[in-house]
Amino acid sequence: MAVVTVTPNPALDLTYTVGELRPGHAHRVTSVRRRPGGKGINVARVLHTLGVPATVTGLVGGPEGASLRTGLAELAIDDTLVTADLLTRRTVNIVDESAGTATLFNEPGPEVSGEQWARLRQRVVELAVDADAVTICGSMPPGVAPSALTDLVGQISRTGTTVIVDTSGPALRAAAHARPTILKPNADELHDVTGIPDARRAAAALQEETGAAVVASLGDAGLLAVTDDGTWTARLPQPLTGNPTGAGDSVVAALAAGVRAGLAWPEMLRRACALSAATVLAAAAGEYDAAAYARLRETVLLGGTT
Amino acid sequence: MAVVTVTPNPALDLTYTVGELRPGHAHRVTSVRRRPGGKGINVARVLHTLGVPATVTGLVGGPEGASLRTGLAELAIDDTLVTADLLTRRTVNIVDESAGTATLFNEPGPEVSGEQWARLRQRVVELAVDADAVTICGSMPPGVAPSALTDLVGQISRTGTTVIVDTSGPALRAAAHARPTILKPNADELHDVTGIPDARRAAAALQEETGAAVVASLGDAGLLAVTDDGTWTARLPQPLTGNPTGAGDSVVAALAAGVRAGLAWPEMLRRACALSAATVLAAAAGEYDAAAYARLRETVLLGGTT
Repeated sequence: MAVVTVTPNPALDLTYTVGELRPGHAHRVTSVRRRPGGKGINVARVLHTLGVPATVTGLVGGPEGASLRTGLAELAIDDTLVTADLLTRRTVNIVDESAGTATLFNEPGPEVSGEQWARLRQRVVELAVDADAVTICGSMPPGVAPSALTDLVGQISRTGTTVIVDTSGPALRAAAHARPTILKPNADELHDVTGIPDARRAAAALQEETGAAVVASLGDAGLLAVTDDGTWTARLPQPLTGNPTGAGDSVVAALAAGVRAGLAWPEMLRRACALSAATVLAAAAGEYDAAAYARLRETVLLGGTT
Repeated sequence: MAVVTVTPNPALDLTYTVGELRPGHAHRVTSVRRRPGGKGINVARVLHTLGVPATVTGLVGGPEGASLRTGLAELAIDDTLVTADLLTRRTVNIVDESAGTATLFNEPGPEVSGEQWARLRQRVVELAVDADAVTICGSMPPGVAPSALTDLVGQISRTGTTVIVDTSGPALRAAAHARPTILKPNADELHDVTGIPDARRAAAALQEETGAAVVASLGDAGLLAVTDDGTWTARLPQPLTGNPTGAGDSVVAALAAGVRAGLAWPEMLRRACALSAATVLAAAAGEYDAAAYARLRETVLLGGTT
């Protein structure tokens, strides 16, 4: 049994290296890399590296869609993407070699028709029946109403399979209504969806309102889980510097792997916290520093009340 | 008879609009536009709008190459591009709506083989025989030695057709050796190729060394032409603010149109100066503000000695 990762709005990620990013100027790009992108695909990459079987699905099309599938094949990641008559979007990530910063530009993605979304929904529900967990990560494509996520989460829940959702804004609200197993907002998303500035109170309110376990990723403050069984926190003794892109995707991967392994909440959070930190230390989203993951797991500070 | 514009390293230009460019952050792209790009293609667009028949050539391939050709067809620009087994590069232009700035990222382009370059050279020489002028604009693709440009310019010159070259660095030096009709460096390129900081002395030295007419574009200082027949300048009474991308391409277009119409140097420079300025006032390279062009032509200040 595998984890199915759904990416409603996948992308071909382009990474451009420049000597120094100077707004208002022209730049010679010294290296161009392309890789499959989108949050759910990052989750699958991390699971694959952890040794957890993962299956990728979503809607793809056009030349960027074909490049994305080639990239997945090269990574030996199981691909159950649905091909459709649409043009998969790009993201462009500008890496500034002198400053060490990454500046990301996300195309909005193609308009998805009702018929195309229905084909993806059918594929996901079929896959969910035999899955250990289904993750739904990232933005919804233009043209699909947030309520489509209420319907999708509800259909997966009815198969009895764990559903983990990491999205934002109206899509997060819509998914929450269908009682997913776990919601994984970050601090901004949590504030945005509840209107409550304090993360702990916001997570508790979202958990109470939806019945879902809420695992909030709070940057340097670590992870906060508010569940039916209790409230826990997990953080590192000191903050890390690195590239935070993909850190949240690694939290989702650790939660899916933990659910599959039947871990209790504290151990699941310990691993999620360490894996997320090991991702900050890696070059790109969907990758993590394996030695750091092993080392950091021993240092995570757990807190909680049951 | 038409003007043939050669683009050794064409591109598919992507323009992304963002609310505000913040280095080190993620951006939602609010609009994505794609258009055929590369300096020679910009020259052809301007000529086409001026009503001068223009034919585009260069090497293209892959999905970006196909998009580029579709874009030319939509513009009704004559396309004699050579299709090859290579992946046409992209450029990404980030337009910051709040600051009004453009930040450009140029991919280096695909490696071009000797056989592929030979096919392009043959196409250009065939087209040159019946052309009013040939323009060669922009960077050389990776894999092609600058000396290939000495050979190409020499072959076109032997057909008796006017050759106008706008490139930089070693490619500019290589082209200059084959005595093109006109070289069109900007101030930096002129300094770089001659080692002489003063633009007037540098242009005179380059003209004397190569026998080519040198038309230097000097930004707010306008145009400086050093030729066998004399030296002329053309500038606006006051500087303009706008988007300078493509201003040099419009100078090349005006020179090609002027050669075709048999204009004398002063009138050719007047038009080149006004057309370049009208391009600064337009939204994108390869476009110009037609009303401003008509108006600015009347205001250009000419100077010169024969």
